[in-house]
Amino acid sequence: MKKHNFSAGPSILPQEVIKKAADALLNFNGLDLSLIEVSHRSKEFVDVMDKACNLAKELLNLPSGYSVLFLQGGASLEFLRVPYNLLKIDGKAAYLDTGTWSSNAIKEAKTFGNVEVVASSKDKGYNYIPKNYAIPADADYFHCTSNNTIYGTQLKSFPKTNSPLICDMSSDIFSRQLDFSKFDIIYAGAQKNMGPAGTTLIVIKDEILGKSGRKIPSILDYQVHIAKESMFNTPAVFAVYVSMLTLEWLKNLGGIPAIEKLNEAKAALIYAEIDRNPLFKGYSEKEDRSLMNATFNLVDEANKEAFDKLWSTAGISGLKGHRSVGGYRASIYNALPIESVQVLVDAMKQLEKQLS
Amino acid sequence: MKKHNFSAGPSILPQEVIKKAADALLNFNGLDLSLIEVSHRSKEFVDVMDKACNLAKELLNLPSGYSVLFLQGGASLEFLRVPYNLLKIDGKAAYLDTGTWSSNAIKEAKTFGNVEVVASSKDKGYNYIPKNYAIPADADYFHCTSNNTIYGTQLKSFPKTNSPLICDMSSDIFSRQLDFSKFDIIYAGAQKNMGPAGTTLIVIKDEILGKSGRKIPSILDYQVHIAKESMFNTPAVFAVYVSMLTLEWLKNLGGIPAIEKLNEAKAALIYAEIDRNPLFKGYSEKEDRSLMNATFNLVDEANKEAFDKLWSTAGISGLKGHRSVGGYRASIYNALPIESVQVLVDAMKQLEKQLS
Repeated sequence: MKKHNFSAGPSILPQEVIKKAADALLNFNGLDLSLIEVSHRSKEFVDVMDKACNLAKELLNLPSGYSVLFLQGGASLEFLRVPYNLLKIDGKAAYLDTGTWSSNAIKEAKTFGNVEVVASSKDKGYNYIPKNYAIPADADYFHCTSNNTIYGTQLKSFPKTNSPLICDMSSDIFSRQLDFSKFDIIYAGAQKNMGPAGTTLIVIKDEILGKSGRKIPSILDYQVHIAKESMFNTPAVFAVYVSMLTLEWLKNLGGIPAIEKLNEAKAALIYAEIDRNPLFKGYSEKEDRSLMNATFNLVDEANKEAFDKLWSTAGISGLKGHRSVGGYRASIYNALPIESVQVLVDAMKQLEKQLS
Repeated sequence: MKKHNFSAGPSILPQEVIKKAADALLNFNGLDLSLIEVSHRSKEFVDVMDKACNLAKELLNLPSGYSVLFLQGGASLEFLRVPYNLLKIDGKAAYLDTGTWSSNAIKEAKTFGNVEVVASSKDKGYNYIPKNYAIPADADYFHCTSNNTIYGTQLKSFPKTNSPLICDMSSDIFSRQLDFSKFDIIYAGAQKNMGPAGTTLIVIKDEILGKSGRKIPSILDYQVHIAKESMFNTPAVFAVYVSMLTLEWLKNLGGIPAIEKLNEAKAALIYAEIDRNPLFKGYSEKEDRSLMNATFNLVDEANKEAFDKLWSTAGISGLKGHRSVGGYRASIYNALPIESVQVLVDAMKQLEKQLS
């Protein structure tokens, strides 16, 4: 029996994807070779890379003028690539600070130059999304994090700005409908909604590149990677393959519109119980609640042992909150079935029954 | 039937490793979760990372004072990390140029400052290893590439220098006995002798760090990664796991001394045929021949079709030479059985018989 996997990342992937990946490890495309033993320049793997890029473009409904990359390094390397490629030597970057990952991105950009934090929700433990901030007109770019895994908050709208709009969508990419053509760079570590840890999806509007005036090392230069079609150096073959399978799964399911409905239903189910059940309280402001990570605490910590026993007995794993927030975090990514959310809700109800 | 896989990288891995990896994809450690669905901070995966690091230390016979990392980005990212961490702002780095990967490393270091190329074999298409060069006494470090996959050359000895000795061992790590404690940094992309593409082993003598005077972005700072035990950001879970399995396989086989003997026997077999068979000629100078990649050409290109048919019919794959050298490249990494080399030698003999 599979666990109900609420892990925040690396996290649950579709069962059929995992089975196909295991098959490809033993024999890839009928080649009598393992997926991880073939050259990344073989026709078979180049096809995988092309398919993954095309699926990403199609699912995000991107117009022409965008490039799609699958690189190594995680979102944390993009924290560095973005300023290297976009921040002019005497320029300025604008950042919105909504949590740990935003602030790591800010820290990395500050290695390069002038960074203006336009707003921060640090004052309240990042439990809300700042609104009504001003982005300086002369910013080389504006950077934000669409979903904050640790705190369970999510940007419901994005500011209008004339500067390039850069977004770290690591934890909610492919989960909801957005006008993705309004973004200039979107990047996302694969290990939530897209695949295993080890590759990062990067979507770039080509025309914003080549303007920073900086000497960019090859490995950090988006234009180099675009010219080499993600094969400037050996890509993370396995992670790209599994991402391709996951995007294929999503497409067959009906794409982002279909998964968004399912995600909304899952989120409604868990948040309804958090709000109804007097033993629990949500961590983040209701209007900023994430569709991907529901964070909540026990009203009375004395019930911890009883509740932990209930959900772990029910086959739930990965529910523990991040150490900086405590309590619980139910990560309800694309591949998590609503049945698993129901099991969690039942455990919460059961606790109430036990104590009444 | 499995192919005889002579691919230059990603390349052949031990069959038992691939089977174990496929099992872990379906159910990791009996957790009823896939390896790629668990948190990298779970006890189970932290154990994998620790084991991989300890196996690397043990197999390389490293004394205390060294740290071992498994990071993303491939050797190409280390081309950048090395100068960022070691090259002083007004300093100088010394590089030995023995091929494409050396020269890529040189190119990247030049983004940062003064680079002196102490010797190069470019004049003869990189078919030999330069000797008797001088390393400037004031170099911040000396960098070399131990094995040149494309050209089939390998450093048989390393220069004595007072500067830190940095070596890219991507294509011959764990293949032969060396005094690894003479090196200050060794790095190696996993995808030849160690595992799948997606992770890089980095071995660092701690005391050389923190002296460059540069402001180093976190993701490029070796000291940050050492402090975070390779978990500054999410590691490439799958690639690290498979690397751990491969190192375990190597240890059970008898470690580097045992595999070195096998590698020498395989190399002797293929080079003897290259030298004996009048239809073929080796590409690289005999004294510099690689134990990992045997490069050779047909004396008469007119025999190409006949030879290609012979080896492909025999179940050999991945034999085509790199486009810059042409001809053939037999990559005979750790996991390739000598039986596969015999099949290749038989095909070469068969060609001779056909034409006589």
